[in-house]
Amino acid sequence: MYTCREDVTEAIVIAKVGKNMNWADVALKIGRSKEWVTAACLGQMVFSPDEATKIVEIFELDVSAGPWLCAVPYKGTFDGGAPSDPLLYRWYEMLSVYGPAIKALIHEEFGDGIMSAIDFRMNIGREADPAGDRVNVTISGKFLPYKAY
Amino acid sequence: MYTCREDVTEAIVIAKVGKNMNWADVALKIGRSKEWVTAACLGQMVFSPDEATKIVEIFELDVSAGPWLCAVPYKGTFDGGAPSDPLLYRWYEMLSVYGPAIKALIHEEFGDGIMSAIDFRMNIGREADPAGDRVNVTISGKFLPYKAY
Amino acid sequence: MYTCREDVTEAIVIAKVGKNMNWADVALKIGRSKEWVTAACLGQMVFSPDEATKIVEIFELDVSAGPWLCAVPYKGTFDGGAPSDPLLYRWYEMLSVYGPAIKALIHEEFGDGIMSAIDFRMNIGREADPAGDRVNVTISGKFLPYKAY
Amino acid sequence: MYTCREDVTEAIVIAKVGKNMNWADVALKIGRSKEWVTAACLGQMVFSPDEATKIVEIFELDVSAGPWLCAVPYKGTFDGGAPSDPLLYRWYEMLSVYGPAIKALIHEEFGDGIMSAIDFRMNIGREADPAGDRVNVTISGKFLPYKAY
Amino acid sequence: MYTCREDVTEAIVIAKVGKNMNWADVALKIGRSKEWVTAACLGQMVFSPDEATKIVEIFELDVSAGPWLCAVPYKGTFDGGAPSDPLLYRWYEMLSVYGPAIKALIHEEFGDGIMSAIDFRMNIGREADPAGDRVNVTISGKFLPYKAY
Amino acid sequence: MYTCREDVTEAIVIAKVGKNMNWADVALKIGRSKEWVTAACLGQMVFSPDEATKIVEIFELDVSAGPWLCAVPYKGTFDGGAPSDPLLYRWYEMLSVYGPAIKALIHEEFGDGIMSAIDFRMNIGREADPAGDRVNVTISGKFLPYKAY
Amino acid sequence: MYTCREDVTEAIVIAKVGKNMNWADVALKIGRSKEWVTAACLGQMVFSPDEATKIVEIFELDVSAGPWLCAVPYKGTFDGGAPSDPLLYRWYEMLSVYGPAIKALIHEEFGDGIMSAIDFRMNIGREADPAGDRVNVTISGKFLPYKAY
Amino acid sequence: MYTCREDVTEAIVIAKVGKNMNWADVALKIGRSKEWVTAACLGQMVFSPDEATKIVEIFELDVSAGPWLCAVPYKGTFDGGAPSDPLLYRWYEMLSVYGPAIKALIHEEFGDGIMSAIDFRMNIGREADPAGDRVNVTISGKFLPYKAY
Amino acid sequence: MYTCREDVTEAIVIAKVGKNMNWADVALKIGRSKEWVTAACLGQMVFSPDEATKIVEIFELDVSAGPWLCAVPYKGTFDGGAPSDPLLYRWYEMLSVYGPAIKALIHEEFGDGIMSAIDFRMNIGREADPAGDRVNVTISGKFLPYKAY
Amino acid sequence: MYTCREDVTEAIVIAKVGKNMNWADVALKIGRSKEWVTAACLGQMVFSPDEATKIVEIFELDVSAGPWLCAVPYKGTFDGGAPSDPLLYRWYEMLSVYGPAIKALIHEEFGDGIMSAIDFRMNIGREADPAGDRVNVTISGKFLPYKAY
Repeated sequence: MYTCREDVTEAIVIAKVGKNMNWADVALKIGRSKEWVTAACLGQMVFSPDEATKIVEIFELDVSAGPWLCAVPYKGTFDGGAPSDPLLYRWYEMLSVYGPAIKALIHEEFGDGIMSAIDFRMNIGREADPAGDRVNVTISGKFLPYKAY
Repeated sequence: MYTCREDVTEAIVIAKVGKNMNWADVALKIGRSKEWVTAACLGQMVFSPDEATKIVEIFELDVSAGPWLCAVPYKGTFDGGAPSDPLLYRWYEMLSVYGPAIKALIHEEFGDGIMSAIDFRMNIGREADPAGDRVNVTISGKFLPYKAY
Repeated sequence: MYTCREDVTEAIVIAKVGKNMNWADVALKIGRSKEWVTAACLGQMVFSPDEATKIVEIFELDVSAGPWLCAVPYKGTFDGGAPSDPLLYRWYEMLSVYGPAIKALIHEEFGDGIMSAIDFRMNIGREADPAGDRVNVTISGKFLPYKAY
Repeated sequence: MYTCREDVTEAIVIAKVGKNMNWADVALKIGRSKEWVTAACLGQMVFSPDEATKIVEIFELDVSAGPWLCAVPYKGTFDGGAPSDPLLYRWYEMLSVYGPAIKALIHEEFGDGIMSAIDFRMNIGREADPAGDRVNVTISGKFLPYKAY
Repeated sequence: MYTCREDVTEAIVIAKVGKNMNWADVALKIGRSKEWVTAACLGQMVFSPDEATKIVEIFELDVSAGPWLCAVPYKGTFDGGAPSDPLLYRWYEMLSVYGPAIKALIHEEFGDGIMSAIDFRMNIGREADPAGDRVNVTISGKFLPYKAY
Repeated sequence: MYTCREDVTEAIVIAKVGKNMNWADVALKIGRSKEWVTAACLGQMVFSPDEATKIVEIFELDVSAGPWLCAVPYKGTFDGGAPSDPLLYRWYEMLSVYGPAIKALIHEEFGDGIMSAIDFRMNIGREADPAGDRVNVTISGKFLPYKAY
Repeated sequence: MYTCREDVTEAIVIAKVGKNMNWADVALKIGRSKEWVTAACLGQMVFSPDEATKIVEIFELDVSAGPWLCAVPYKGTFDGGAPSDPLLYRWYEMLSVYGPAIKALIHEEFGDGIMSAIDFRMNIGREADPAGDRVNVTISGKFLPYKAY
Repeated sequence: MYTCREDVTEAIVIAKVGKNMNWADVALKIGRSKEWVTAACLGQMVFSPDEATKIVEIFELDVSAGPWLCAVPYKGTFDGGAPSDPLLYRWYEMLSVYGPAIKALIHEEFGDGIMSAIDFRMNIGREADPAGDRVNVTISGKFLPYKAY
Repeated sequence: MYTCREDVTEAIVIAKVGKNMNWADVALKIGRSKEWVTAACLGQMVFSPDEATKIVEIFELDVSAGPWLCAVPYKGTFDGGAPSDPLLYRWYEMLSVYGPAIKALIHEEFGDGIMSAIDFRMNIGREADPAGDRVNVTISGKFLPYKAY
Repeated sequence: MYTCREDVTEAIVIAKVGKNMNWADVALKIGRSKEWVTAACLGQMVFSPDEATKIVEIFELDVSAGPWLCAVPYKGTFDGGAPSDPLLYRWYEMLSVYGPAIKALIHEEFGDGIMSAIDFRMNIGREADPAGDRVNVTISGKFLPYKAY
């Protein structure tokens, strides 16, 4: 029986490593983007009851995982160092909430390594939207693999 | 006479606010992206000597600003709280180096407010590149304006 | 057998998630406000013996929970960063003591999301009171839901 | 000549103390709430050009204050200790951005002292709003004056 | 079998809450002040062998508690933030060592609440003593109870 | 002209050291306790206008000091490390607000040295008071002088 | 069954100490440098499936260690204090990622002690490389042994 | 007149940027390695009186710089985060003392950019030395240039 | 079976308290100074295989303790706050590595209490030594006992 | 005119470096130990009026330095990281108060370098004293010089 969301997250990660599963495949089965599903599996988002049932099946979890997957978790993964400015903070929070998913998905696609912050480009633009305009940002960084020697 | 890069950055910001200038216009005159030019004006990148000369003219700086604009600065704007994992750190560094430019450019385009981390979407993909494949990320967050009351 | 108040709090949260209970209903059964009861269930307030008995029944706790629910706990949930000014500190403490209850009650009413600090209004006033005038504050922030994508 | 928003804020505070002015009166002249105007005077919000002109007159500031009052400032007044959970963070940010204004307005109305976090009540409710429902919170704390002895 | 002083302290607190005991009564049985005995029971002071035997009986501890109660513990309960000045530090240390006892004894006498630092008076004086004069301090703060609502 | 309360505090300390004045004498002239007056002179309390006038005369300050002495200051002198429990925090705040005054008064009476936290006794009691019972604490610590060698 | 990479690392270290094994020998069996293999065994690098199989054999681990040794770990061993400058940060990260391996290998070769940072020389040079020039650094520090007394 | 070593360091850096000088040339004139001379110019080492005289000439400093260049400075440039283990600490100190020189010399040779900690190799060996064996380390990391876009 | 050096240290401390042993006696049996032996027993130094065998016998440890006592441990007991200057750091490290031994030995000799830093003298001298001169320091501080009351 | 003790300390250090003076000579003129006098000159101890007069003469200070040298300063030079245990803290405080003097005196006697914490011995003993027994500690560490290369 799981006693908190962290227990469920740990069980998901153990199942994924043990069975050599793929976040992108999990996302396909849930029917949502790989970014959101990975963040949710890593404990940062709330699943609907139907989605939670699928997650329990996919990772062969104890059925007690269901309610935890549907309960709002304590989110964020960073300690200290948050910038006080509200605009900068939202970016920092994005990293704190999505960081483990970003790491997991880049490693899934590229293997061990990093996305360069030196060989790097960024573009910030406006996307008109009737529900309120959006800030659109595209980021491009070269992937640099760790190599054994 | 300026005695460090921080002095030059401060002088640029004072000139920009006093003359009500625009980062996008400055970038046009330099002939580079607004993202890179703003980060460079805010003290995070190195200008070429020609670019430095233009910056001195645009912001009507003392001529002693030139060499500082061409010298490699101590970069980054965040204190503490960096994640130890190299992949996550590169994203954190991107925020530490580009943060003031991101803030400046979103405010220039949208006014006072924030880019939402709640009404938010992210997509991570691979861009093939002969010089080494790149991680491409697109981020979309609703702009939420501060309103006076 | 519980060996500290934190054990009892954890058991209450496990019961609540497992049985899909509602803080507002618990408060009704105790006969106090949902704000105080939620804070108390989350380990920040002292129950009377009668209230403690009800809490044990409602959440089907081991009977050893009773004395812990009536003992004064070590309160507060925030680490570091407290402002030194006494007036500001009282607000910070309010957040440290009531924070988990605020989070729980907003999620109970609205689901996963946040209360905006941007689309936000605050009003501070005086309420005359023979036992000493009170500061009354009303705060209004738009609820912004997380949406899956 | 002011060289940053902090200079302007300092000049406003010096003028206010020296002339024994009142935040509520300033707000009246600006035509907005005392909460927003005080936060803005203390460097956390952006004035419109007309409002900035009035602020310069009211506090008899150097005219160079105008553009700084209309530029988006680096906001927030708290260092470290921010909770990582997004819902809790919004409350913490509210305190970080509005804290100096809250302190100033309670002292203006009640004199030196604090708003009690012990003799304290809180109520959280939902306000229906066609533009999106809002979280409404009312807080009531006894004012406790410092007394000389 | 206890494996450190912290284990013994935890067992004492569990016994006290479970049996609804009273620090003042424990002190009477030990024959010392309630302040010292409470601090010692909470792990900050060293008992003599005879006192340790009594503590084992009073709280019905395992006999292995005896040697731990007579061994000098690692003292202090505060993390970080100590003032560097030696005079101020001694006061901070007093709070770090006696803090849990102060909290326990005020709650025992008054119930849940705080001793006000606002409705507060302090007096510092000299007490002549042949073994070296002493600093005598008296502090008086109004007790403010938490009330349920 | 002073531009903040800290400037006034600094000027008071310079005057006191330069003229070899005595906090107890200042308190006598103000007609209040030496503890409160020293804390107020060191920037932690608010003087009445009449008291402020006297302080300006006693320390021969610029007349612009008056309004700052009557304005509510940002209080507290400790950074970080505050305990989260409200009861313990009030004691910590007492030390943060009164610390410099405690240090000044013990040095004034005893010279350089410290009040021992080892050769130390504490007593906590209840004082009945129609306006609400008070917690009375007496603390006694041996004075230990620094000696040159 | 191991439930995370840290479990596998711990098991490797226990096996190594218990069997008095040698990192250099392990590296030989894996067919890579002792620096990379030690860092990988200590949880900072990713093994190929074949290498992982050998590691399981060498240290007689449970077979469930295999997938963890091939999964990308959360890397780095330092908390806080990272310099914000990107160039300096890369050196700090090198120490954070390779630190435990550096310590293990110097102790393996020299016994308990340190590499002096006082009796120390450093040389920084350029190595031409068609895939991009490299920074080559040689560091020489006297080994200073701890001696029992 | 300089009033501390930091003043002299600042003057050296201003002179170097203003005159577009080169650390390697300075080292040649002093007759020592570029690594040691750069670290010394940046305030981390002690010059002999003759060397100090040359430094004053090279950078055209005020003559009062001499004694400061010969006095032992407070060394190190990192705040917090030091590992407690003595072997690891020596490496951290090497970075804290030599960090600014490492940064300066890599930028002098390669321009703006970083030395990769990903495309990276390290080798640790023993150098026999009659005065006590030495730890020799060679590090190789690809240089990655920042590019404007 | 012990799984790390910390386990062995804990077992030594439990044995010592349970059997009321004496560090000085242990040192005698090992044939080294009490300062070094206590530091080593508390996990900061490396025993030779013969010494380790004796330690296992003296404290009646499981035989698996042997290899851990001979392996180089991660040393130091202080978190954060290290001074960056190399000379000051060595003193800080001495305290971090030897601190628990210093505490244990003073308590063994004097009972509960402290060594005064106020009634205190220090002398720093040079001891000629053919292997390199040594800094000799003598420190004398009055012992102040805690007394029960 | 000096406005705080820190100003006087800075002036002493400037005078000493500029005139190439010697702490041991200053101590001789004052008639006290070099350890105490250096600590006092560096702002950590209180001079008697006669000693203060001599200090003003020796370092040719402005006469306003006198009262500051006789006033009790805010002592200590370390930020954060203090151990909470009172015995360990006294040693840490000794380092915080005497650290700059220790550094100055070792450099004066030995030049630039450090006192080794590796090639190091410590002895702790009891000195009988009618005014209360003392803890005597002797420490011996090899001096390791920085060498230019």
